[in-house]
Amino acid sequence: MTPRVLVTGAAGTVGRCAVAQLIDAGWDVHATCRAEPPDLGPVTWHHGDLLVPGAAAQVVQAAQPSHVLHLAWHMAVGSWQTAGADENLAWVGASAELARTLNELGGERFVAAGSCTEYDWNNERFDEDSPRRPASFYGRCKAITHDLLTAYGTEADLSVAWGRIFFLHGPHENPRRLVPAVITALLKSEEAQTSDGLQVRDYLHADDVASAYLCLLDRPEAVGAFNIASGHATTLRHMIEHIGATIGRSDLLDIGAIQRASTDTDRVVGDHERLAELGWAPGHTLESGLDATIDWWRDNLDPQEPRS
Amino acid sequence: MTPRVLVTGAAGTVGRCAVAQLIDAGWDVHATCRAEPPDLGPVTWHHGDLLVPGAAAQVVQAAQPSHVLHLAWHMAVGSWQTAGADENLAWVGASAELARTLNELGGERFVAAGSCTEYDWNNERFDEDSPRRPASFYGRCKAITHDLLTAYGTEADLSVAWGRIFFLHGPHENPRRLVPAVITALLKSEEAQTSDGLQVRDYLHADDVASAYLCLLDRPEAVGAFNIASGHATTLRHMIEHIGATIGRSDLLDIGAIQRASTDTDRVVGDHERLAELGWAPGHTLESGLDATIDWWRDNLDPQEPRS
Repeated sequence: MTPRVLVTGAAGTVGRCAVAQLIDAGWDVHATCRAEPPDLGPVTWHHGDLLVPGAAAQVVQAAQPSHVLHLAWHMAVGSWQTAGADENLAWVGASAELARTLNELGGERFVAAGSCTEYDWNNERFDEDSPRRPASFYGRCKAITHDLLTAYGTEADLSVAWGRIFFLHGPHENPRRLVPAVITALLKSEEAQTSDGLQVRDYLHADDVASAYLCLLDRPEAVGAFNIASGHATTLRHMIEHIGATIGRSDLLDIGAIQRASTDTDRVVGDHERLAELGWAPGHTLESGLDATIDWWRDNLDPQEPRS
Repeated sequence: MTPRVLVTGAAGTVGRCAVAQLIDAGWDVHATCRAEPPDLGPVTWHHGDLLVPGAAAQVVQAAQPSHVLHLAWHMAVGSWQTAGADENLAWVGASAELARTLNELGGERFVAAGSCTEYDWNNERFDEDSPRRPASFYGRCKAITHDLLTAYGTEADLSVAWGRIFFLHGPHENPRRLVPAVITALLKSEEAQTSDGLQVRDYLHADDVASAYLCLLDRPEAVGAFNIASGHATTLRHMIEHIGATIGRSDLLDIGAIQRASTDTDRVVGDHERLAELGWAPGHTLESGLDATIDWWRDNLDPQEPRS
């Protein structure tokens, strides 16, 4: 029988890539999103807001999945770090309700999205056992949801994996975030102002984040936390300059024009050995990933829309 | 204006004592319970199961309280330690929903029941900063709820206190638990078999646990975790022998007849300095508290009901 997966947050950057890969891999895909469902091919949509009390249980009951890939979370415009306290709190409960309902219906596997913001950024490189000390309420709620769902998995004998995303770029990303902001500015022949870009980060293309989640869905024996990271350290400056060179408009870059916040951490890089042991590897290099994202924006740039 | 408090779990051992004290202190008391509401005097009851999705938000919206005293949690028969994974998980979400709804409606103060089982019982004496390492999923869910609600309180500017109960006895306790089991056996002239009773514990009468919560409700500047403990170490054997002597049936005690579980911890005692700094002190000594509980069972023993 074709296994059925319910994907929450399927209209997001990672969700869209995951749905495409799941369809390719022969899964029966059910999906949720808050707004009007996008056209992602053969998907059974369950439209609605998972934060409405009772909605999370209802969607699992309606979809009857064997697997859940839970990517949905409240994203504030511009930065998830500033999302509201109420929404972040509510996502903890909604995430628990999804897992509990899956378990009650005899489901097999629950895979959910964690975040590198769960870790203590006073350190610079993170494996899954690195100390956690979230600086934001978002990170704290993600860390608490990890603790709750992995403990519940053990107690209730439900297979639970938690994939901690580091940094990503890809199609349909909020254009106010760094990579799309630089790409779209240069494609529109506008100046792109950035910080000095000396921050060291760990970026993946959304397709590689999605393939990590597919790997986790396929391996129910793999439980607990998994970093979804390239393992490759890059400065933001290197990425910005690569975008400038690829588009051929390095002249529009104004690197250093924006003062870095004093709280901006120097270095955040993830180890992905646990995931690599399951057979996952990113398909893109840093440069080929950026090139794919540039190509997507080139095809999808709305020339009418001014850069905000 | 009379402040209005919503008490969840008001039909429990602590809840009944708290409701009586709140009425005496002039609060406008709203209360929830799952079963038929008991007659506790001038209380506005909101009858229903808080684990039904959406019910927690609804009851706060209906009661419109300025304060919430959240005592409700799933208790399995005989021991909360063995309550189901699903119910424990669901209480995390329901607790968050109560706090969020209170905050959304402009409420002032959220006080909730924690547990000494949140701590690492490899230690023997606990203040509020002692390491936590719950041995049970119940304790883990309580610890996670503490983390979630205290962080939410900071983020959302809601005053949140968390009162960690150690051990208690009092009216309406489940008769399968130690203190009422020994009392009711002796009152019925039946033999009371116990373990060797050398475990050291920290017991309060439920009236003193309730007065600690009233103290916390009255002091919104006091946020975070507070041990609700006597600070007084006693062996179970001392308590059992006091019950035997008070009832005058020490001859029916068979101390040591039951093998202690290998996991039964030697010593669990709490420091209550944080709560004492707020002006709280227990009204009972260990002995006067036990005598009050014996008197209650003497008045409320159903002679028809066989000891289970």
